[in-house]
Amino acid sequence: MIRKPQEYIESLNDGRVTYYLGEQVPDVTKQPLLRGSINRAALDWVMANDARYRDLVTEVDEDGERVNFLWRQPRTAEELLRQRDIFVLSCRIGFGIGQNCHAMGVHAFLAAGVVAAKMDKKIGTHYMDAVESYRRYLQKKDIALTGAITDPKGDRSLHPSMQKQHKDFYVRVVDKQKDGIVVRGAKMHISAIATCNEVIVSPCRAHREEDKDYAVVFATPLNAKGITCIHMPMTANAAGGEEADWDYPLHGNTATTTETLLVFDDVFVPWEKVFMCGEWQFSRDIAWAFGTYHRLYSISHTVAESELITGAACLIAEYNGLEKYGHIQDKLAWLAMYAEETDVLSKAACSYPDVDPETGLAVPNLVYTNIAKYKFANERSEALKILADIAGGIASTVPCFKDWKNSNIRKYLDKYLAAKDGVPTEHRLRVIRMVKELTVGGGYGTAAVMNAEGSLAAQKMAIYKGSDWERYKAAAKRLARIPGWEDHSLFKGVPDPRKPGYWE
Amino acid sequence: MIRKPQEYIESLNDGRVTYYLGEQVPDVTKQPLLRGSINRAALDWVMANDARYRDLVTEVDEDGERVNFLWRQPRTAEELLRQRDIFVLSCRIGFGIGQNCHAMGVHAFLAAGVVAAKMDKKIGTHYMDAVESYRRYLQKKDIALTGAITDPKGDRSLHPSMQKQHKDFYVRVVDKQKDGIVVRGAKMHISAIATCNEVIVSPCRAHREEDKDYAVVFATPLNAKGITCIHMPMTANAAGGEEADWDYPLHGNTATTTETLLVFDDVFVPWEKVFMCGEWQFSRDIAWAFGTYHRLYSISHTVAESELITGAACLIAEYNGLEKYGHIQDKLAWLAMYAEETDVLSKAACSYPDVDPETGLAVPNLVYTNIAKYKFANERSEALKILADIAGGIASTVPCFKDWKNSNIRKYLDKYLAAKDGVPTEHRLRVIRMVKELTVGGGYGTAAVMNAEGSLAAQKMAIYKGSDWERYKAAAKRLARIPGWEDHSLFKGVPDPRKPGYWE
Amino acid sequence: MIRKPQEYIESLNDGRVTYYLGEQVPDVTKQPLLRGSINRAALDWVMANDARYRDLVTEVDEDGERVNFLWRQPRTAEELLRQRDIFVLSCRIGFGIGQNCHAMGVHAFLAAGVVAAKMDKKIGTHYMDAVESYRRYLQKKDIALTGAITDPKGDRSLHPSMQKQHKDFYVRVVDKQKDGIVVRGAKMHISAIATCNEVIVSPCRAHREEDKDYAVVFATPLNAKGITCIHMPMTANAAGGEEADWDYPLHGNTATTTETLLVFDDVFVPWEKVFMCGEWQFSRDIAWAFGTYHRLYSISHTVAESELITGAACLIAEYNGLEKYGHIQDKLAWLAMYAEETDVLSKAACSYPDVDPETGLAVPNLVYTNIAKYKFANERSEALKILADIAGGIASTVPCFKDWKNSNIRKYLDKYLAAKDGVPTEHRLRVIRMVKELTVGGGYGTAAVMNAEGSLAAQKMAIYKGSDWERYKAAAKRLARIPGWEDHSLFKGVPDPRKPGYWE
Amino acid sequence: MIRKPQEYIESLNDGRVTYYLGEQVPDVTKQPLLRGSINRAALDWVMANDARYRDLVTEVDEDGERVNFLWRQPRTAEELLRQRDIFVLSCRIGFGIGQNCHAMGVHAFLAAGVVAAKMDKKIGTHYMDAVESYRRYLQKKDIALTGAITDPKGDRSLHPSMQKQHKDFYVRVVDKQKDGIVVRGAKMHISAIATCNEVIVSPCRAHREEDKDYAVVFATPLNAKGITCIHMPMTANAAGGEEADWDYPLHGNTATTTETLLVFDDVFVPWEKVFMCGEWQFSRDIAWAFGTYHRLYSISHTVAESELITGAACLIAEYNGLEKYGHIQDKLAWLAMYAEETDVLSKAACSYPDVDPETGLAVPNLVYTNIAKYKFANERSEALKILADIAGGIASTVPCFKDWKNSNIRKYLDKYLAAKDGVPTEHRLRVIRMVKELTVGGGYGTAAVMNAEGSLAAQKMAIYKGSDWERYKAAAKRLARIPGWEDHSLFKGVPDPRKPGYWE
Repeated sequence: MIRKPQEYIESLNDGRVTYYLGEQVPDVTKQPLLRGSINRAALDWVMANDARYRDLVTEVDEDGERVNFLWRQPRTAEELLRQRDIFVLSCRIGFGIGQNCHAMGVHAFLAAGVVAAKMDKKIGTHYMDAVESYRRYLQKKDIALTGAITDPKGDRSLHPSMQKQHKDFYVRVVDKQKDGIVVRGAKMHISAIATCNEVIVSPCRAHREEDKDYAVVFATPLNAKGITCIHMPMTANAAGGEEADWDYPLHGNTATTTETLLVFDDVFVPWEKVFMCGEWQFSRDIAWAFGTYHRLYSISHTVAESELITGAACLIAEYNGLEKYGHIQDKLAWLAMYAEETDVLSKAACSYPDVDPETGLAVPNLVYTNIAKYKFANERSEALKILADIAGGIASTVPCFKDWKNSNIRKYLDKYLAAKDGVPTEHRLRVIRMVKELTVGGGYGTAAVMNAEGSLAAQKMAIYKGSDWERYKAAAKRLARIPGWEDHSLFKGVPDPRKPGYWE
Repeated sequence: MIRKPQEYIESLNDGRVTYYLGEQVPDVTKQPLLRGSINRAALDWVMANDARYRDLVTEVDEDGERVNFLWRQPRTAEELLRQRDIFVLSCRIGFGIGQNCHAMGVHAFLAAGVVAAKMDKKIGTHYMDAVESYRRYLQKKDIALTGAITDPKGDRSLHPSMQKQHKDFYVRVVDKQKDGIVVRGAKMHISAIATCNEVIVSPCRAHREEDKDYAVVFATPLNAKGITCIHMPMTANAAGGEEADWDYPLHGNTATTTETLLVFDDVFVPWEKVFMCGEWQFSRDIAWAFGTYHRLYSISHTVAESELITGAACLIAEYNGLEKYGHIQDKLAWLAMYAEETDVLSKAACSYPDVDPETGLAVPNLVYTNIAKYKFANERSEALKILADIAGGIASTVPCFKDWKNSNIRKYLDKYLAAKDGVPTEHRLRVIRMVKELTVGGGYGTAAVMNAEGSLAAQKMAIYKGSDWERYKAAAKRLARIPGWEDHSLFKGVPDPRKPGYWE
Repeated sequence: MIRKPQEYIESLNDGRVTYYLGEQVPDVTKQPLLRGSINRAALDWVMANDARYRDLVTEVDEDGERVNFLWRQPRTAEELLRQRDIFVLSCRIGFGIGQNCHAMGVHAFLAAGVVAAKMDKKIGTHYMDAVESYRRYLQKKDIALTGAITDPKGDRSLHPSMQKQHKDFYVRVVDKQKDGIVVRGAKMHISAIATCNEVIVSPCRAHREEDKDYAVVFATPLNAKGITCIHMPMTANAAGGEEADWDYPLHGNTATTTETLLVFDDVFVPWEKVFMCGEWQFSRDIAWAFGTYHRLYSISHTVAESELITGAACLIAEYNGLEKYGHIQDKLAWLAMYAEETDVLSKAACSYPDVDPETGLAVPNLVYTNIAKYKFANERSEALKILADIAGGIASTVPCFKDWKNSNIRKYLDKYLAAKDGVPTEHRLRVIRMVKELTVGGGYGTAAVMNAEGSLAAQKMAIYKGSDWERYKAAAKRLARIPGWEDHSLFKGVPDPRKPGYWE
Repeated sequence: MIRKPQEYIESLNDGRVTYYLGEQVPDVTKQPLLRGSINRAALDWVMANDARYRDLVTEVDEDGERVNFLWRQPRTAEELLRQRDIFVLSCRIGFGIGQNCHAMGVHAFLAAGVVAAKMDKKIGTHYMDAVESYRRYLQKKDIALTGAITDPKGDRSLHPSMQKQHKDFYVRVVDKQKDGIVVRGAKMHISAIATCNEVIVSPCRAHREEDKDYAVVFATPLNAKGITCIHMPMTANAAGGEEADWDYPLHGNTATTTETLLVFDDVFVPWEKVFMCGEWQFSRDIAWAFGTYHRLYSISHTVAESELITGAACLIAEYNGLEKYGHIQDKLAWLAMYAEETDVLSKAACSYPDVDPETGLAVPNLVYTNIAKYKFANERSEALKILADIAGGIASTVPCFKDWKNSNIRKYLDKYLAAKDGVPTEHRLRVIRMVKELTVGGGYGTAAVMNAEGSLAAQKMAIYKGSDWERYKAAAKRLARIPGWEDHSLFKGVPDPRKPGYWE
């Protein structure tokens, strides 16, 4: 059953223990910045209730009820492509970032399922019953589930049970009881905690036998006793409203997902939500399966983000009247390559899936997915550098909303910061604010550092003009026996061993 | 005569018309954020009055008075190296950015001098008198001077006098009177306006005859009638104090220099401060001379900034317990190369100067200077990418000062965000905040985007593990006639044209 | 009708005027080096007559006769994918290079067809009749056809009719007669001339009206009067036989395709083989259509070549016992990315074709094809650098066949040039010869230059060990307010503007 | 005493056991290809006897005799800069490669001296006597000495004494006798064997105690009993004479240095030429000292080679009439940067040397030297790619000498392969042959692969033209709230969470 957006939002006010910017938050739906993130997440429910998207994002279960299509464990290229289409749509609507309620959680859950099946078969456990029962619950209650994978890790060179300062750098089982287990530890960089009802927790690494208490997979509601959610500062801008939109179009009001340090202070989990407990040989499988599934999301948001970066570059080139210059077209072509390469590899990862011969389950093509993710992340700094380069120094020194609203100076801004005739100055400033937000970093900001004291092109031209081309050419002519080098001071009269008879 | 820091600061309250964040500012020394920038600039006067630095940054003039050494027009490698040492010291004290009161202005003034001498000689003008008289004034009054070069430009494909929307996209002379000239237009990206007493204004491009009204070089106090200073938002953090230092070590309190849109609404300039007026053939020389001088500053701040980036990477690697891993050392070696290459090229630019044969004036080696600047700017995004890569995802999800101050959650942060034994968690968080400030950009922030869904190294390993090495090797073995490819499905039984007698 | 390989070979002895290495060649099938190239080309006919490949490379025409599938003008993704499969197979058999008789010619012909249809429709010509009649001839006679596009161009900054030295830098019509036309000029870089029966000639650029004599498309047998074929030196090795295979596995006997300067000294062409004559407005269309079709071949051979480079690297890493080292796996992963990215983009270019809405004709996706080709060509030098880096200096100093055959020294070579236990020294040497052949270039050869005086990794480690890390860390600690920088000589006692009350 | 070139040459006919191309060579001065290398090496003696160079390359010893300046152990920046000047001159005369008789040997000897002093001081040995006595012998007899460092290594993952196949993969002492030692093993990649009288042999790695037989440094004449010199194939062209010069200007007659597998089959070495024997703790020092000294040579030949590559690019750009295009100037600027960066770093490595505080001995600055070498080697493939890119496809398909000499086809070549008016076609072809020789590699050759099926620039333009800019711009406009995206099919009607009141 698909919930209404408002039902979803209200369900998050569930008494959980939450901190944000150092203060305890009684109701996450009332804290303005967290609410920004929740509003963004609620778009998943808008989509599922919208006639245009419903058939893409939901399917009808055996009871005739609509359930979210993402809970389906994919078996074919078509199912993977459809899940990818859902993520791409969600990320495109979300300006490069998906709503994310159905990414971490979905993939952590699918990974738990794959490994439960494997354990049951190989060592005779019965985890698959718990998994399937939980899947029905997720579908029927339309739960917002996230996943918690990364542990704080402490000293990276030591195994979990060998840590010196304390033993809780990785989440572990501290007690096994008749009805369930008790867990302690923390998970960090956990996305979408403020926007989800429950979380599924898995190991992030392989284990050895002495670490078997750390080999645990379980799900729990976020308002369980002993859980503290410490949200890290988001990039959202406190001003809000029109000012935030003007100054920070990407994050002004449309907050990104939250990132959270999730603390488990001896939390009880009933056996029906435990999907692994002590089977340390399978921890590696969980980590690997999660990674493989989750990169499907990864290579979906890259499509929308690279499209946005490329579009910003193209727009500011046009507004600056530069779109006809060869070197600008060359840079735009690079960005288009960046965007399209990402998209092609992502589609191919679904079209050519890896299918497990035993179970028939399909995961995105391992190699293609990883190439897509690697290329996107590795070349992103180059893409943003090019964006800053095209935009010019003004991407660091652009005025803000408050400047624009003061009529005493707006007249000057409007007059002097105009560029191509026909483009309203405000449009130009809006796109430059966006470029600034995308590229800022490191002191002055990228655009300033690149353009202060002359652009890259200016340096290249100065080098070209200042270089000693006569020396270079003389060296080459002498080798190729072309006249014209003999009088160059560096080469004049040097021995010529190639002269016939020189050595006789 | 060298002023005291406090004298310098007070001189800036001179009645100028200034706006910041959309509000008019009656006294720039009282606006907290501008004052941050002024405090930073005042370090130039601290240095000049400090026994340790005085002999480096000042010299004694013919009257026996101390004057700033930067006003000297350099003629030798030694003088250039000394001016470079001043800038490097200033930038090192300033965390990668110089105080800047004596950079733009100095170099714009030196450029005006070079071109005045050239004009006087070639076309019989007498600008050199005005230049020398102004130099004495700058030295004796110890004036804080900045330079204004870049015009707003409007449509980049049109010359100044051909602009469609209006004719003021480049600063121009609108009236010549008996005692002086009247100028109109604006200059943008102008650094250090809030921290200087006067500004020297020059063209940023070559001109043709029809643009001769735009061929104008002059100096003016910033409180002259008709000047409006519209400061653009700085990256300084409004919180200030301990919180700002914790969260934004680079810009929290130590604001960067200001960047300003400087509007000239029919401003009168007396002839004694006019250094070019209508000699359009020499505009190109002014732009070129300024660029060449000013890159000396450019390749000085890069030394300090690259040193800081490299140090941050080394420190966080140590705190995370990673400094012994080969791939981390490889990355640190890259950063050290980045820092040292910048330094070597900068020193060599001064050691091997270009000396004008006619005048004996020395400028930094054109080619070396531009290589230094290009390499620094072009590779900076790679340097920051490496920094983010070493720091890991926490460089996006690190807690802030307010989190740290709440004892309810500090206990968790202290416990779980510890890394290498012996390093206080607070030290680790402080360096991570710095990395975050240096690398943030584009949505989530660089560190998040690079590390979400697995690090670059994780992708590479997945690709390595998932690749079809048997296919690749079979292709190579077949070519090299090494057995072992014959049974590979792709190659089995293919025609072998190299078999002896195949074609007979 | 598909010819037998031997019939094809004999048909090339047709009386044409051919030069190779400065000597006239009476019969191309008897010149040993050209014959190597012809043998390679004949594999196309081996494939077409081989039961395993026949259904892929041929189809049955309306008369029930088998004809080559490549003459078909593709209309669907499936047809494009099949043509791609043919090219990939051919290139894989050919060690990275296709047999090429059916690449240039096919694509030049398909381009002529597309533009003929366009001209007939837009300006009422009747070229399509000639095109269709020629297609039947090609299919029925199973003609080996190549294409000639690139003109010598002379001064690149001048249009064809504006050239100063003479007017023949681009092929042009010098006479129109009742039965046909007379053409003069030359085409350069023409592949597969020695291995084809006929050639189709097209313009390589857009034309203006004054260049209309240059707007000509025609086909001609290569033994036509007035044609001279000047073959450029191939990389084939004159030694031949076992020695050539050992020393130059890639080109020792399996010569590449020939590259030819094709001279037209007033050659007559009958109207039935003329597909454009004077319609200068359509020259641009011809050039564009050819480029688009032909890149399908381009992104097919890249699949086989990148697979071979990657395989060579993997093999030599294994033979040297290095495959377990992290930095070697990192490099191999890069190569696998290079190979797979090329393959994915190439498949996607066919799967998502551009279909002309008017004619229904399909060409490979313009953007994907060009990304594939660009990535392959642009990153190839990096791929070969990595290959040389993994192989080490021995890829420059490896012994040759003659060394190996001398038993006096073979005993030493066998003993000392062994590497991993279990790998015959000869196998290792064979793969190193291949690497040498692939990477040689520039003086000593790439491997020598990279490894002489220490490998890249050795430099990085020396930089790491020699760097002044204390300076870097002090700079960072000071900014982050972490103790430990105060005693560093560069920072000791510097002014601290952030100290509370400093400015009061 | 400085020998005459002819004396030097004759001294090499000393009865040594030499093989080349599989045949035993009775007298190395009579084998044509080896003699090419010897002629090149003899230039060192030409320089030392030439009044123009004598004062640079020699000094007067305490007996008033001229001796080679390179035998001096440098103590100051000036001495290092002078040794660098000698190497740069030698490499410039040698077209990018030094004569090399005084590079390996000099640096291996200097390293032996440094470590002998250290051993004598720390563990009371007396090796320094042997070192100084040998230095006098080298100076007085003007010996051509090379150095042998690299062992064949066998399985890289095993220590010398742990090798499985045999124990001789590293040179070792097999017997100690009253008068000397007996050594066995081989050294590979040994430069300049055919052109030297003696060789000094050192370990290439650190040792452990069980490897102490491998810790040996000694010198020996190359005609000692038990030494076999197996020269590897050089790139010299067998044709020789005018043809070789035309076709292979770099290596046609001016052969590179030889590279040799040097076999020691139980060779006796008297104690006076033994500089280390069993002191395994110091093997690491020898390897490190040699590396540090020898990189001075390394960063000298790079100056000459990078100058030549840059000059070739500039020349062919001019001959093709392309030097005015922005993208060509951009590429040339890159190459000038490459050349100058190498030069600056190399000079700085000598100007800022590392001086040992105990001994006062100076070595080139470790960090700067390694940066110079790394940058040169790492970016060289990019430099050659740019060279091939500027030259175009003809760098693969250029005619050869035999073509040019046939007057029947020369008329065509002269007519059609002309480019810019005023440049003789022969000059253009000569520089293209040089480019071909520098860039060939991998199948067809770099130029062909890069240009076949369109240049890199052509791909970029196709991508630019084919890209879906409307989609990209719509994405950006929507984010920046600029009208114009609402009707794009992908974005039309998507939910807008930023609309005021959307969630209320």
